[in-house]
This record gives sequence, structure tokens and C-alpha cells, in this order.
Amino acid sequence: MEGIKWDEKGLVPVVVQDEKTKDVLMVAYMNNESFELTLKTGKAHYFSRSRQKLWLKGESSGHTQEVKSVRIDCDNDTILITVDQKVAACHTGYWSCFYRIWENGWNISGTKVFDEEKVYSDKDNK
Amino acid sequence: MEGIKWDEKGLVPVVVQDEKTKDVLMVAYMNNESFELTLKTGKAHYFSRSRQKLWLKGESSGHTQEVKSVRIDCDNDTILITVDQKVAACHTGYWSCFYRIWENGWNISGTKVFDEEKVYSDKDNK
Repeated sequence: MEGIKWDEKGLVPVVVQDEKTKDVLMVAYMNNESFELTLKTGKAHYFSRSRQKLWLKGESSGHTQEVKSVRIDCDNDTILITVDQKVAACHTGYWSCFYRIWENGWNISGTKVFDEEKVYSDKDNK
Repeated sequence: MEGIKWDEKGLVPVVVQDEKTKDVLMVAYMNNESFELTLKTGKAHYFSRSRQKLWLKGESSGHTQEVKSVRIDCDNDTILITVDQKVAACHTGYWSCFYRIWENGWNISGTKVFDEEKVYSDKDNK
């Protein structure tokens, strides 16, 4: 995709921000394929570094991200997308993956939205 | 620093968000030293991957970032800080480094705040 500077693994970090609240929800990685699929479908797709595969956000949980805007930084090596986040972004059940804050140690400051065991149990445990 | 999962280069990506506007300003990288200096001084310090050295944000321009909060993500491998950004974050003169938006190509959507040639000329060109 024109202009993006992919890293040595063919990836680019993507900051995901909720369109309405402006909360930063997560950071994930895209390769060229996931970037093009995101533009084409309007739903955020990433490349999972741990599973080494293309990943439609919400494919298990239903917590998809409808993409509202796509921006690139001055160095062409980082993407920022704003999204309409369904339910919550984090697989732990929190609205944002950044649910812990530093106060002489990490303390939970975020909002838990769903019970991750119920949402993922059908696929992962049964 | 406890709990942070540094990458193979000893770095962690840091999303920088303006405390007041909630705009995402930039993404930079910290190593352990810059993370500790950031906590100790309250001013954002990074590790420059291109220059391979510690970097106090604003050391040339005066456009420092006073740190208001520090958060970590669910995977312990990404940091989010909120800051009080002086003047502008981007060395190009834009408020945010994410000043271009995708609309069948990258188009400028951001706000230019200062003239980068005037701000940097004393140090870089003379």
C-alpha cells in the first residue's frame, strides 16, 4: 500500500482509537493484506504475531471494529485508525486494553464490560 | 521496570495522547532507562531508534511533554501515556504526527502549528 514503511517483518503498528470517546483501545499490527482488507471491508483486520495469521478483530467474540478513519504518521511507519468499537476491545473484558495505570505499580483503572469466560468459552473450552 | 515485556531490542512502543484533547499525537519507543527517566522527571523521554540514543522530547524544539498518566496494555508490551503537549508534537510543525488521512490516497487533514524551519534552524542548519 502506497507510502507505508513496513518493518523487517512486513508489519506496521496500528493505534486503535474509539471514534466517539477518543479512548485509545489497543495497539495491533497489520501487514499489507490486513491493511487492504481493512480498507475494502471497513472492518479492522490485523496480523497476529503470536498466531502468525490474519485476524479479523471480533471473529470469535463478535466485538468487531467498524473503521471510521485511517491516518499515517510523519515517518510513514505507524497507522492510527478510529473505530466504532462493538462492546469492548480487550479480550480480558475491559473496554480498553490499557486498563492498568502506573501509581507506584500497575493498578486497575479501566472499566470491565463483559465476562471473558462466557464470551470465549464456547470456542475455546468446549 | 516491573512487568513490562521489552522486545528483542529492549524497547517498548509508547502511544502518546494529549491529556486535554485526547488526540493521539505520536508513537515513540522507550527502553528501560527512558521509561525510568520519564517517571522520575515527569517529562517524556524516549529512545531514538534512528539515532540509537536517549532522547528528551523537546530537547531541541522546547516542545516538551509533561506526563499526566502512564498505562500498560493487557499483553504488557505497549505503553500509553497522556501528556500536556507544549506547542506541537510533530517535528514537521503539525500538532499531531498523524496529520494525513486516507481518502483514496494520503491527504493532509491536520493542523500546522509552527514553521519547522524556524524552530530547528539554529541547531540543524547553522
